[in-house]
Amino acid sequence: MNQFGQNFRLTVWGESHGTQIGVSMDGVPAGIPLSEADFAEDLARRRSGAPGTTPRREPDLPQIVSGIYNGHTTGAPLTVEFANTNTRSQDYSNVVRHYRPSHADLVAHHKFGGFNDPRGGGHFSARLTLGLVAAGVVAKKLLPADVRFATRLTEIGGCTDPARFDEVLRAATADRDSVGGIVECRVQGVPLGLGEPFFDSAESMIAHLLFAVPAVKGVEFGSGFAGARLRGSENNDCFTDAAGATVTNHAGGINGGITNGNEIVVRAALKPTPSISREQITYNQDTDRVEPLEIRGRHDVCVALRGAVVVEAAVAIALANFIR
Amino acid sequence: MNQFGQNFRLTVWGESHGTQIGVSMDGVPAGIPLSEADFAEDLARRRSGAPGTTPRREPDLPQIVSGIYNGHTTGAPLTVEFANTNTRSQDYSNVVRHYRPSHADLVAHHKFGGFNDPRGGGHFSARLTLGLVAAGVVAKKLLPADVRFATRLTEIGGCTDPARFDEVLRAATADRDSVGGIVECRVQGVPLGLGEPFFDSAESMIAHLLFAVPAVKGVEFGSGFAGARLRGSENNDCFTDAAGATVTNHAGGINGGITNGNEIVVRAALKPTPSISREQITYNQDTDRVEPLEIRGRHDVCVALRGAVVVEAAVAIALANFIR
Amino acid sequence: MNQFGQNFRLTVWGESHGTQIGVSMDGVPAGIPLSEADFAEDLARRRSGAPGTTPRREPDLPQIVSGIYNGHTTGAPLTVEFANTNTRSQDYSNVVRHYRPSHADLVAHHKFGGFNDPRGGGHFSARLTLGLVAAGVVAKKLLPADVRFATRLTEIGGCTDPARFDEVLRAATADRDSVGGIVECRVQGVPLGLGEPFFDSAESMIAHLLFAVPAVKGVEFGSGFAGARLRGSENNDCFTDAAGATVTNHAGGINGGITNGNEIVVRAALKPTPSISREQITYNQDTDRVEPLEIRGRHDVCVALRGAVVVEAAVAIALANFIR
Amino acid sequence: MNQFGQNFRLTVWGESHGTQIGVSMDGVPAGIPLSEADFAEDLARRRSGAPGTTPRREPDLPQIVSGIYNGHTTGAPLTVEFANTNTRSQDYSNVVRHYRPSHADLVAHHKFGGFNDPRGGGHFSARLTLGLVAAGVVAKKLLPADVRFATRLTEIGGCTDPARFDEVLRAATADRDSVGGIVECRVQGVPLGLGEPFFDSAESMIAHLLFAVPAVKGVEFGSGFAGARLRGSENNDCFTDAAGATVTNHAGGINGGITNGNEIVVRAALKPTPSISREQITYNQDTDRVEPLEIRGRHDVCVALRGAVVVEAAVAIALANFIR
Repeated sequence: MNQFGQNFRLTVWGESHGTQIGVSMDGVPAGIPLSEADFAEDLARRRSGAPGTTPRREPDLPQIVSGIYNGHTTGAPLTVEFANTNTRSQDYSNVVRHYRPSHADLVAHHKFGGFNDPRGGGHFSARLTLGLVAAGVVAKKLLPADVRFATRLTEIGGCTDPARFDEVLRAATADRDSVGGIVECRVQGVPLGLGEPFFDSAESMIAHLLFAVPAVKGVEFGSGFAGARLRGSENNDCFTDAAGATVTNHAGGINGGITNGNEIVVRAALKPTPSISREQITYNQDTDRVEPLEIRGRHDVCVALRGAVVVEAAVAIALANFIR
Repeated sequence: MNQFGQNFRLTVWGESHGTQIGVSMDGVPAGIPLSEADFAEDLARRRSGAPGTTPRREPDLPQIVSGIYNGHTTGAPLTVEFANTNTRSQDYSNVVRHYRPSHADLVAHHKFGGFNDPRGGGHFSARLTLGLVAAGVVAKKLLPADVRFATRLTEIGGCTDPARFDEVLRAATADRDSVGGIVECRVQGVPLGLGEPFFDSAESMIAHLLFAVPAVKGVEFGSGFAGARLRGSENNDCFTDAAGATVTNHAGGINGGITNGNEIVVRAALKPTPSISREQITYNQDTDRVEPLEIRGRHDVCVALRGAVVVEAAVAIALANFIR
Repeated sequence: MNQFGQNFRLTVWGESHGTQIGVSMDGVPAGIPLSEADFAEDLARRRSGAPGTTPRREPDLPQIVSGIYNGHTTGAPLTVEFANTNTRSQDYSNVVRHYRPSHADLVAHHKFGGFNDPRGGGHFSARLTLGLVAAGVVAKKLLPADVRFATRLTEIGGCTDPARFDEVLRAATADRDSVGGIVECRVQGVPLGLGEPFFDSAESMIAHLLFAVPAVKGVEFGSGFAGARLRGSENNDCFTDAAGATVTNHAGGINGGITNGNEIVVRAALKPTPSISREQITYNQDTDRVEPLEIRGRHDVCVALRGAVVVEAAVAIALANFIR
Repeated sequence: MNQFGQNFRLTVWGESHGTQIGVSMDGVPAGIPLSEADFAEDLARRRSGAPGTTPRREPDLPQIVSGIYNGHTTGAPLTVEFANTNTRSQDYSNVVRHYRPSHADLVAHHKFGGFNDPRGGGHFSARLTLGLVAAGVVAKKLLPADVRFATRLTEIGGCTDPARFDEVLRAATADRDSVGGIVECRVQGVPLGLGEPFFDSAESMIAHLLFAVPAVKGVEFGSGFAGARLRGSENNDCFTDAAGATVTNHAGGINGGITNGNEIVVRAALKPTPSISREQITYNQDTDRVEPLEIRGRHDVCVALRGAVVVEAAVAIALANFIR
């Protein structure tokens, strides 16, 4: 469903080419200073325009339509909306039934009996992550003041050298192709004790949200998959004080599903954008044949670029749900 | 919290050394044939005794205490309990405040103000996964009849050659150490359309449950982390018919969070058992010093061995939640 | 919280004098024909203007901002918004801290640390019920086609003779006072089997929603309070066929929390509007004294008049939650 | 479903004639002193034996099977079970398909396709309220220490004079009939501010639980239905200080769905026990005819007698859900 969380509960709605998309946040305490300007920094990190991102430009100005009075949250639902202004639905006319590979178009068509809004991916569009970023901004205000996020792309298209990222993007662009990436989010200052046994472990809640982000196909904490190749004596983090400090941090700051006060380290694998402009072969329901498809429209070469702040927002939202 | 799901809702309780552990399942339709014998096969896969597993032996006989009448489910909550019979709490006396590295003992102590049950890990014990396995058995009965699970260990301690697994386990045992592993679960016959936008994607629900399983530190679908290193043209799965069939399956059977009818492929990274019998250095709250610790008790050398069926159960439970 | 339901899940937001109020509905199946015109009839029943209702007139035009495509629902969240156009916040300047008797102003002030939006009752305004009425329209489309609602005011200010209702209203208006009322909602065609043991009985879900409607202070089903004064032999409904038909209907169509196929009969007691224009004595936080208060603003003499359709909507929404 | 609540979440299971019934409570903070003896007083209030109650005697000894260590709650799920010892299933053999009037037997049969456990009402039995009473005991420990409950029967079979209650019960017993009753629960010391807009008002949560109690068919707060017959000037409660004190309490301690610090006053109407031993006429599915039925078994003449503590427990549980 389109809700997430208990203490900080999100509801999202909207479609890529509808009039607007929105997010409503419940459980936000009263009295938090908040204005539309507070969203600017994180929204800018999600904005397109840089090399490797879509040329579709939206101002993405947040409009707070409820839950604010005299510059502070009121304790009532906090709702933020974003108008959709730069839509070119005609770009999608040829892919409504000529299903783009690895896209949600086909499953959406079947699941919703052909009634889904196919324009720009409709409700499945990554545009919905605008709401996540907005909620992430609020979530950070709910966390203790000394919580610090450091999020970065550690890898693009298999290249781990940030100095060569532009080169990788240019090459993919030249080939009318796309590349995936890996986003790492580190969070310092998280208090010991966030996370709930049995099912709502800190990892469970963070991963639940991360896997709701389009393109995310893998999530790991601390040593993650590499840790599964180690021995216990190598992967264990020995405690050095009563507060839970450890020298190593293979656990990524989480033991038994509960934050242990060390830095949280989580990585998300984002697949390469499935919408590429080079020709692909795929099934066309109109002709009932597998045929070449050329995808029009304006797409990111690497969604991980703009996805980094979305990953960060997801982590912040999940952690905020453990704060009472 | 200790609940999961909507349509098929689990509640778990119990501690490693309490009288019993239990699971209650809500949303189970009436009229499903079920007896205690139906649990035997999957419980046997979780049972200890094989090389690399703990010598703690429990009969683990399931007792159905509600929701059954005349050999069929009644539509009322289905509750299964397991007695704890083979407990040796004295083994844990030396680790209550001398915190085992990478264990939940320290966070549990702090989170619950010292009131947690520390015996055998208490509520954090992997023994709680008995309830997951039992629920997985029921979940499989809720899925379409042609759904087939194939779950295997693809890797132990970094070794990908199953023929050498015993050797790896023996070496770790000899070193009084442990090894991690990677479990892959493949599910055939899953109908197109399971999963809900935005937050309850098939990946989100599966990962939520998997990360509730003790030791799981990474989850990926289809090409996962490797896919993030590919180009779109390499990672895309082209559709070949109206039903969503694809030649490749980098998506692991899920597009846009919705199952696409292809095989679901999910992998979980299980860290090496943190309880190893070789000496480690860690904080002792009684002496307020970092001191050598020798962990007694009976532990798995590789939790991934018995964890495979738990991973499978988690996938089954998550999928069953999408069935109405 | 501001969410209700599982299968048909509502989220509401907004304040009386903000820019808009809204409701988002999740779980609406795809393919239901829907347009803004479909809301007109029920919204008209809630509209002011008739004798006994507030002179505040709002066009209350619903705007569907998500979840609709080509005149049908898409399966994505269906969001409806209503602009607030006719606000006179200055009417409330004298009651922000001079607390209106029996109003939420005082508790809202305390609960939200003085950060609540006090204009027109803010988020506590009965204006929020616009969203309920809109959701009720959709809920009715989710119920079987032969479900029929018949909702009426059975009592106003203690008068049970509808022919005299206008007289009662005129007298209260002349006295600058208000009157309460009792709304009875009868629903025919409800299939046997709606409602879930143990906690989500049909009565529980209906009452949960009804008591969320401002002014509702009592709810009863079938013979209700009067039935508690009867003997079993008088109150029992004997079954006359295998389908659950009964001659009498003291149960109001619900046995053991499950609908039995007979007419559902539920009554809600709505208190008299607390905002009356005749002078009252109440605490003034500015002077720290109990002082006379004259409430300005435009208020209903009898909220039950416009509340009838809200009660009906609440019943419809609760029932729709039991449909899969 | 069989779960209720967020902060203090209950799960119930079991059947009247199964091996046991149980309740698991999640969200109970660690460190609360608790033993089986703490349940004795409230369980005794629910116990049968007094005139007007069923002669079925059960020891109803609570067994805490999880969530307790060293006499304190651990923060893990607190599970309490009660064995079913005094079952006489043969008493029900004649009513499995000869449906008792106003009972859940018929709807349960249809809803669950004939797979429900019919013995003693199965999962629909009032025996399940044992779990509510147990949870109520814990809920009271979660509320502030100065919260005081005063719960009493104000009416039996239409008689409001407690001195004559025994007479009313004797008369009904002599007639092999039953009587309904009205339970009033008053709660002092409830802090201002409990309850959540919009849907989770204090009244909504209390009523949700009360209507889950078998036999409850009406709920009202403060002046309730009588208040709907008053004028605003009569029903309003004028505030007398900044803390929300009022002289009158027609609101029953709740404004706008939020507790206002005054005494909470809630009344529940409990219908007369439908199981009466005098002959009734009802549908028999075996003969497909409407035929006389004589109900065997041991039943309460007035469920409201033992129901008072159940009502109180429901109120306590609902309030405890608002405590963080």
